[in-house]
Amino acid sequence: MSQPDRAAIQARIDGKLKPPGALGRLESLAHHLASTVGSPDRIDLRPELLIFAGDHGVARHPISIAPREVTQQMVMNFLAGGAAVNVFARRHGIPVTVVDCGMLQAMESEDVAKSSLGAGTDDLSEGPAMDAATLERGLAGGARQAEEAMDRGANVLLLGEMGIGNTTPSSALLGHLLDRPAEDVVGPGTGVSGDALMLKRSLVQRALERVGSVEARRALAELGGFEIVHLVGAMLGARERRAVCVVDGFISQVAACYAVEIDPAARDHLVIAHRSAEPPSALALERLGLIPLLDLELRLGEGSGAALAWPLLQAAADFYNDMASFESAGVVL
Amino acid sequence: MSQPDRAAIQARIDGKLKPPGALGRLESLAHHLASTVGSPDRIDLRPELLIFAGDHGVARHPISIAPREVTQQMVMNFLAGGAAVNVFARRHGIPVTVVDCGMLQAMESEDVAKSSLGAGTDDLSEGPAMDAATLERGLAGGARQAEEAMDRGANVLLLGEMGIGNTTPSSALLGHLLDRPAEDVVGPGTGVSGDALMLKRSLVQRALERVGSVEARRALAELGGFEIVHLVGAMLGARERRAVCVVDGFISQVAACYAVEIDPAARDHLVIAHRSAEPPSALALERLGLIPLLDLELRLGEGSGAALAWPLLQAAADFYNDMASFESAGVVL
Repeated sequence: MSQPDRAAIQARIDGKLKPPGALGRLESLAHHLASTVGSPDRIDLRPELLIFAGDHGVARHPISIAPREVTQQMVMNFLAGGAAVNVFARRHGIPVTVVDCGMLQAMESEDVAKSSLGAGTDDLSEGPAMDAATLERGLAGGARQAEEAMDRGANVLLLGEMGIGNTTPSSALLGHLLDRPAEDVVGPGTGVSGDALMLKRSLVQRALERVGSVEARRALAELGGFEIVHLVGAMLGARERRAVCVVDGFISQVAACYAVEIDPAARDHLVIAHRSAEPPSALALERLGLIPLLDLELRLGEGSGAALAWPLLQAAADFYNDMASFESAGVVL
Repeated sequence: MSQPDRAAIQARIDGKLKPPGALGRLESLAHHLASTVGSPDRIDLRPELLIFAGDHGVARHPISIAPREVTQQMVMNFLAGGAAVNVFARRHGIPVTVVDCGMLQAMESEDVAKSSLGAGTDDLSEGPAMDAATLERGLAGGARQAEEAMDRGANVLLLGEMGIGNTTPSSALLGHLLDRPAEDVVGPGTGVSGDALMLKRSLVQRALERVGSVEARRALAELGGFEIVHLVGAMLGARERRAVCVVDGFISQVAACYAVEIDPAARDHLVIAHRSAEPPSALALERLGLIPLLDLELRLGEGSGAALAWPLLQAAADFYNDMASFESAGVVL
């Protein structure tokens, strides 16, 4: 967007009937939305929520409170409309699309978008999670899902994920990117502690040592997950076609770090929904240099935090579009 | 609510299809709402937003960026539906009631609820803002407004205010309650700095020294505002009839401190919408011992922050009511 357009956006915000800056972060959010998917005159937001689902080889180890079958059970629950993310999305009329990115059992339901890369990744603690060609298919698949949502009319993509065990690849990816040991980047995920947490740390540490220092794409193939590479691809695709992505919790935040690593311009199209309760989320957010909208100690994933942040995007657009100005209200200070 | 009922509420939350505690503060919010205005089986929320408006004798000094006439202009703007609070409330279908608690010019519009205590308070830097009888009328008037909203069906009252200069009495009230000097409790309000900020501090300091140490009701009369005492009364009235109050920014938070001072049980019926950008808001929140839902650097008042927090209350009720449970989804961990 041109500099005069940006100035016009700021002038519109400053002309609203309120003390300058009194709407705080909602003002910078409105500026962001107007300059990405809006115009100096108006912000029209059309959301769609995408849930990328995948299974993980590393989850054959007892590193989660849930067995791997729960990925599929949760996808069935998404289709039935019973998950937290469904409940939150429904309230605000946000369409939800579930994408099979590579689950243990391929989903047959016509209600699931198909982008499977296989029956779960390989065990990243022992070897590459996927090969380079599969990674590229995953990135392209994520971009295609973003584009299809945009073809359906969306200009704001709320991104979430489902995959039992997927804080483990996320921690490994973050550790690699920040050159930090497992100890710094592994958290309890669904809520593991004790031996399970120790095991999770040691698997991540083994993977980090196995992979060493490589560039971002290679790290994604070595340490990633099918839903995670789809998330990265969706963010890159959205940036290409100028949609805004609302990034959910820890896993999505790590994906965002890699999207920005591959294309730094992607950062300008991200809104971080919330500060996750998963401790290493703080490191991912620091790396991104972006401040989340909410801080509610959420750690559910699914895109549930993105759906909870959505009304704030809507509020930013609403005040930008509909609030009276000093001029329209005839008030002079 | 009985202990078995509280246990049933927690069991319902823990039975939802998610890792225990994964919805973070939304879970404690749901518990709070179920135990105040809901039941173990269901939370049905019916909101109404009340804006209490009043003028301030102390605002004859240049302590705000806006002249006192702006209170009335903003009330006209509320009636026209053009203020930030209107825009936010409209999105979620929240009815808005504006109450004239004592403005320079009495509002004649039938669309304004009448509870005027006079043509603005007296100048608190020179003498009592109002007398004891007026205070009692104000507390009763606020309670009556809350009761009328509940008679209209509301069980969640979103409370806001309008009154040019009203961070000054709020700072004075907070300083009195915490036994802190003006320096600690006076912020920029609408955005004053330099001489205006120095003047604001010195007026508050003079008032604090004039009043000395008195009990809460006396402090409210000496240092309060007509809209502030209505806010206190509304919170006390809501507690009496078991409605939940959603407390907006700094001014409403100070009113909440006094409501709790008068009736400690009122605290159990408060939800703090947001952490205000007005620096002494932090002291008020610390005094209340309550954590706000949002932290968006808002400093607009009007109830705008309460309206922005509303979707989170709705989300807490929605997951409590409609999200699948392990039992309903047939998932066993």
